[in-house]
Formats: sequence, C-alpha cells, structure tokens
Amino acid sequence: MKVEIIAVGSELLLGQITNTNAAFMSKRLAEIGADIHYHTVVGDNPERLKEAIEIAEKRSNVLIFSGGLGPTKDDMTKETIANHIGVELASNEEALSYIEAFFKRSKRKMTDNNKKQALVFKDSTVLNNRTGMAPGMAIKKDGRHYILLPGPPHEMEPMLVDEVIPYLLKESGKQEVITSQVLKFYGIGEAELEHRIQPILDNQTNPTIAPLATADAVTLRITAKAESIEAAKGLIAPVEEEVRSIVGEYVFGTNDDTLSSRAFELLQKYGYTISAAESLTAGLFMAELGNEPGISAALSGGMIVYNEEVKVKQLGVSEHILSEYGIVSSECAEALALKVQAKFETDIGIGITGAAGPTPHDGEPAGTVWIGIALPNEAPVTHKLLLSGARNANRQRAVKFALYYLIKELTE
Amino acid sequence: MKVEIIAVGSELLLGQITNTNAAFMSKRLAEIGADIHYHTVVGDNPERLKEAIEIAEKRSNVLIFSGGLGPTKDDMTKETIANHIGVELASNEEALSYIEAFFKRSKRKMTDNNKKQALVFKDSTVLNNRTGMAPGMAIKKDGRHYILLPGPPHEMEPMLVDEVIPYLLKESGKQEVITSQVLKFYGIGEAELEHRIQPILDNQTNPTIAPLATADAVTLRITAKAESIEAAKGLIAPVEEEVRSIVGEYVFGTNDDTLSSRAFELLQKYGYTISAAESLTAGLFMAELGNEPGISAALSGGMIVYNEEVKVKQLGVSEHILSEYGIVSSECAEALALKVQAKFETDIGIGITGAAGPTPHDGEPAGTVWIGIALPNEAPVTHKLLLSGARNANRQRAVKFALYYLIKELTE
Repeated sequence: MKVEIIAVGSELLLGQITNTNAAFMSKRLAEIGADIHYHTVVGDNPERLKEAIEIAEKRSNVLIFSGGLGPTKDDMTKETIANHIGVELASNEEALSYIEAFFKRSKRKMTDNNKKQALVFKDSTVLNNRTGMAPGMAIKKDGRHYILLPGPPHEMEPMLVDEVIPYLLKESGKQEVITSQVLKFYGIGEAELEHRIQPILDNQTNPTIAPLATADAVTLRITAKAESIEAAKGLIAPVEEEVRSIVGEYVFGTNDDTLSSRAFELLQKYGYTISAAESLTAGLFMAELGNEPGISAALSGGMIVYNEEVKVKQLGVSEHILSEYGIVSSECAEALALKVQAKFETDIGIGITGAAGPTPHDGEPAGTVWIGIALPNEAPVTHKLLLSGARNANRQRAVKFALYYLIKELTE
Repeated sequence: MKVEIIAVGSELLLGQITNTNAAFMSKRLAEIGADIHYHTVVGDNPERLKEAIEIAEKRSNVLIFSGGLGPTKDDMTKETIANHIGVELASNEEALSYIEAFFKRSKRKMTDNNKKQALVFKDSTVLNNRTGMAPGMAIKKDGRHYILLPGPPHEMEPMLVDEVIPYLLKESGKQEVITSQVLKFYGIGEAELEHRIQPILDNQTNPTIAPLATADAVTLRITAKAESIEAAKGLIAPVEEEVRSIVGEYVFGTNDDTLSSRAFELLQKYGYTISAAESLTAGLFMAELGNEPGISAALSGGMIVYNEEVKVKQLGVSEHILSEYGIVSSECAEALALKVQAKFETDIGIGITGAAGPTPHDGEPAGTVWIGIALPNEAPVTHKLLLSGARNANRQRAVKFALYYLIKELTE
C-alpha cells in the first residue's frame, strides 16, 4: 500500500496554519504497514490540485486528501477529483439531514451553500463525521483509492481512526494484525527515558518501541505484528514488563489515558471528592478535571485565589504564613490545600501557588511552583517545581504535575 | 517568484514530527510577495528526492529545501542536489572551524563524519547557521535558485529571516511590498460571514480578502500589494471599512488580538477588576484570562461552583432561584454574576452555568449555556447559548462567548 497524503488549502501555503494532519495520518497509517513516500500541500486551485493528483497517481495507489470539503467557494476538492476521475456527485440524505439538524439545534439559519457539504461521490463509501458537518468519502477507481477527509483536525482525526483505517484494512485483505500498547509517562523527559531503556530499544524488532513526546506526556508505543491479536499481545507483554521494571515510577497510565482521566478514575475508585485553591493556574487545574464527563461526582467546587487579599479574606489563609514564608512557598501551598479542603468539605484539597512568569513573584524566580496535596487522614504533602518555560507553558505544566502527583498519591 | 518548499526527512513521513518549517517559511515568504504553490515532503531517499526536485523544477523557480544537512548517513540532501544540478561540493573553511570550535566548547570529541557538515556547493552563497553546526547554501543554476537549510526549526528559522529573505530580495530586485490587516470575528460562522460579504469578495483583486476559521475565531485577512507600506495600507483601509459596515458587530479585534488579550486590554482601559463564578466551565474562563501577563491587576479571584450545594452555601445564591428557575437559567447566571461580584468586591462579575454534555442537566439539553455579566452601576445582562458540540468543545465555546460578550459590553 503506497500512500500519498495531499492537504488542500491556501491557508497552509500562506503559513497561516501548520499541516498537522499529515503527521497524524502518517503515524496511524504507518502502524498498519502503509508506505508513505510523499506529503503534498496544494492551494484552493482546481488546476494545481489536478496536477498534484496526476503526479500522485503515478507513484501511489492510495491518495488521501484533507481539506476543501466545506461550504464556501474556496472548497473544491471533491468537485475537482470527481471531474478528474469521472464520477458524479450526489446529495447524501443522511449527511443532509445531519447538517439540517445541526443548524436547527444551534438555532442558526442554514444558508444554501451548506447543502453543498452533503454532496458525495456516487457509489462511494461515505465516511461519517461525528464532530463536524462535512462527511468524508472513499472510492476505488482504476485500481487506486481516493479518500477525502475534512481539514479541521478535530474532525479528520476521529474519521481517520474510526473510518479510514478499517476501510484500508478491509480493502487490503491483510491477515497480519498489528496491535500496540502505549505507556504514558510524566515527570521524565523523552531523552532521559530513551537513555534509560536504551538496552531494550537496541534489541527490538517485533515488537518495535517508539518513544514520542507531546505536551501532555511522554509516550512509548510498543507495537507487535502477528497472525492474531492474542499472539501480538503475547509479544508485547514481556517487553512492557521489562520497561516498567526500569522506569515504571513515571508511568501514569496506558493508551488513551490522560492525566485527568486517570486522576478521575482513581477519585471514583475511592469515592473521593476534591476541591482546589489555585493561584497562578487560575482555574486551569479544575477546568482540566472538568474535561471528564461525570466529574460532578468528585468535583464540587473550588476557588481562584489570584491575589494575596483573596487568599486571606476569602479562603482564610493566615497572614502570618504569607508574611513569614511568602506566597511562593511550601507552607502557602499546604495552607491552600488544607483551607480549601475544609471550606468545601471535600476529601482531598489541592493548593497550587507560584510564579508563572515572565517576571519573578514575591522574590521567587519565574517558574517556581509549589503544589500542596491534602489527603483524608494523612499529613499534607508538598512538591516544588522549577519550570523553565514561558508563562503559559509553566501554568500548563504546573497543572499536569499537580495531576501527576495526585495520581501517585492515590496509587502508592 | 514561484517558490516550492521541499522538506526532506523520513521522520516527517512517519509522522514522528510535524512539518512546522513549511508554515514558518510560507508566512515569511508571503510577506515579500513570493507565490508558494506547493509544499512537498520526501524521505531520506536520493532517488525519490531527485524525482521531487524534477517535479518542482517544472513548476517553480525557487526551490527551498530543509533537512538532510547533518552528519549521518541519512543526510543526503546536498549530495543529491549537487549531483542533480552538476555542481561540486567543497569544504568551507569558516564552517569547518566553527564546527571544530563547537565540539571544543562542549568538550565532546569530534568524529570524522562531522566534517561532512562543512561541505557546501562550490561558488554558492554560504548561509550562516548561528544556532547549529550545518551551514546552509544558496546557488543559482539555469535560472533557478536552490536554497538549502537545516531541518531543526531553531536553526532554520533565524537563517530564513536573516539570510534567505535578504538573498531573495536582492536577487529579485523587487520594489513591491505586501502588507495585511487581519480582522477577527466571533459569534458568526465562516460560511455566514462569507455569505454576507460576498459582494465585496467577488470584486476584490488588490487587496485580496481571505476568510479563515480557527477554533478561536473566524478571521478575514485583507492583503494589499503596492510600492510602499503606506500605499498598501491606503488600499486596505476602505475595504476594511466596507467589511465593518456589514459585519462589524462581530469584530472583536485585529491582527494578533485574542479574545482574552482584547478583554484584558479593555479591563485595563477602564481600570476594572473582575471575578467569575463558573459552573460547567470549572475555571476555564479565569484560566483563559490568566494567560495574559499582568492579569493580576484585573483578576483577583473567583469561584468554581460546580454543584448546587456550593452555589448556595459558598457563594450565597438563593435556594429559591435554583428551585424556581433551575441551575441552567438566566436567573441563575445573573445571580452567580452578582454574588461573585459582591463577594470578591470586583467591578465586574461573570456567571457561567449550563449543561456541558454529553447528557442533559437539570432538564436542559446538553449545550444549553447561560452567561451572566454584572457591570458596575448597570443592570446585569444575560445571554443564552445553544451549542451543539461535544462536551469540551461546548465548555471552550462557552468561555469564548463569555469573553466576546464582555468585550461587547465594554466597547458599546
């Protein structure tokens, strides 16, 4: 399977947005053994898109397009391809009623150009778009697959995973299965992780081990090929165990786990409620937990205590602690955790205080953060971070570390 | 000047890294009037790189490459191009001594393969690399420019700005400049915006008008070419005015403005302080404002009031309001705004309540959100949203709308 990824959109060529779709697609397609030899980006120009298609047809047998399925005049991917390969466009009833319902629900007026989004190739496989309006489509013509997906990543990504990958596996008739186990790490850098498991990395062919750093975690993807899922899992298990024996202390979850989903899972396991008093993070910790559906079972409330007066007057932190130890201190983080735990009558209280940057705060350099965790029937614990990023990266990382330390407390 | 950007690296095709270089280059090159019709990504494979070059030569006269200038066996960009266009490689003395000094300084042993990095095309313009080891190079051959840059963004980016842009300006002898004004919209979809200004869009050639939707805003980029910045701005001004006369109510800012930066700017303008009581958004509104450096001048604190008990007990919302009108109601949003304004003694109070989803909440369908804004010496106002996204998209959009309505209140 030789795949070429063609992103369509003048905004990409003007540098207004980055082509993250190609990377996402490539990673997922590589996992099912696709060979990807080229990425191409072309603008909203039918003539140049046609040229790009002709070039791709000479060197690949699966062409995956993203972008240009929307309602505006600029959007001409499917019209251009239909014209080029000689198929007709027809309105898809299901897609049209979905689009109409979308407008009805949001009480917005549906303009006529939105109907265009429901047009798909006749006799094609329609690819459902659950997070947007324009459906995707896949068709085989003269031995080649043409697969069209919308451009916005939050629409394209689930469609690739849920619709395109199964389509390609079915079309390729492959017997070999590939399965992965992803380990998720926090509190360790990618380079150090790789260094510590180098002896394992050096000797691996099946399963393969691929490290990857994202903003949310460092991950290791262990991928095995075998004739069955069970056999592949059997190859993965001992390698996973070996990795965990070296760097297991940094593992907070697997596969689709995030720090917040894992924290919520543990809160539910023990039936714990939680509140937080947030200074530099200004609500980001609770907002992150709030991502989890059903979180109201664990999160009742909390307080943003951005300035000193609010810390004292609203939450009741003693002025003595602030004058004696400062706002950026272990004592302040502990007091925030204990006070919010008591005030909101929750099992766990979290306190986050520090200097986000760009300037020092209360005598502490930018990036200094203290996290306090008050647990039921245990002495509170605090952790110090020395972060070196920009203001918002520091705030984000403070929240991630707070979740990570909370997870550690609830699993040890 | 027709430019094609060719990124070389198998790690891009495997999706291990994202091609951010193409976006960076495109934005900078568009500013000097370059036409960029294609981006291409090709792996570390001489044969396929040669094919990509041959295709690019047919359609562009400036080929800019990034990646493949390093010391390893995989790095073969300059060897492949030298071979293809028939130039020799020669060691560059300056580059070599720079590389030797680099190793000396970092007390690492310089292996022989590092000498390869000092090889450049004979008779080319050497492009200095101040943040890495491999120099870039530019050469004109048969009417085409071949420009080679290293792959790591922190090396490539300053080289593009400091070396490549001046090189191209000099070579093109161009006097023409390009400048843009970006208008930022919220509360209107891309399709509707385009529909409403269609008569303007239809007749524009210079300036051009390009709509773009991102998660944070819908933008219109108005771009003019002229012989001076002043003349270009003179072309933009009347078009901007015409656009604003039709859809100006949705404009919240220009260029690099975000909803939170614009809200903070207006809070500062009036010297207002702000607090918020957040239910479904669980801190996201204050966290978003907290992105702005210096926000502590305006944001002192606030409360996450996730469940009913906290709304009543901690913030003092009357039980009558909740039982009579429900949690997802105009009355509740108004009470949250007024109570948090009073409790935290701020000029402005914001209340956000609603059903994030995926399930209905308190009898209201998922996506129903009420935003309350209490201003100094004015009756509070509320706004209802009917959002149709997934849980977290709804929470994010509730925050954006709250910022948008706040901006409208402070600008009308």
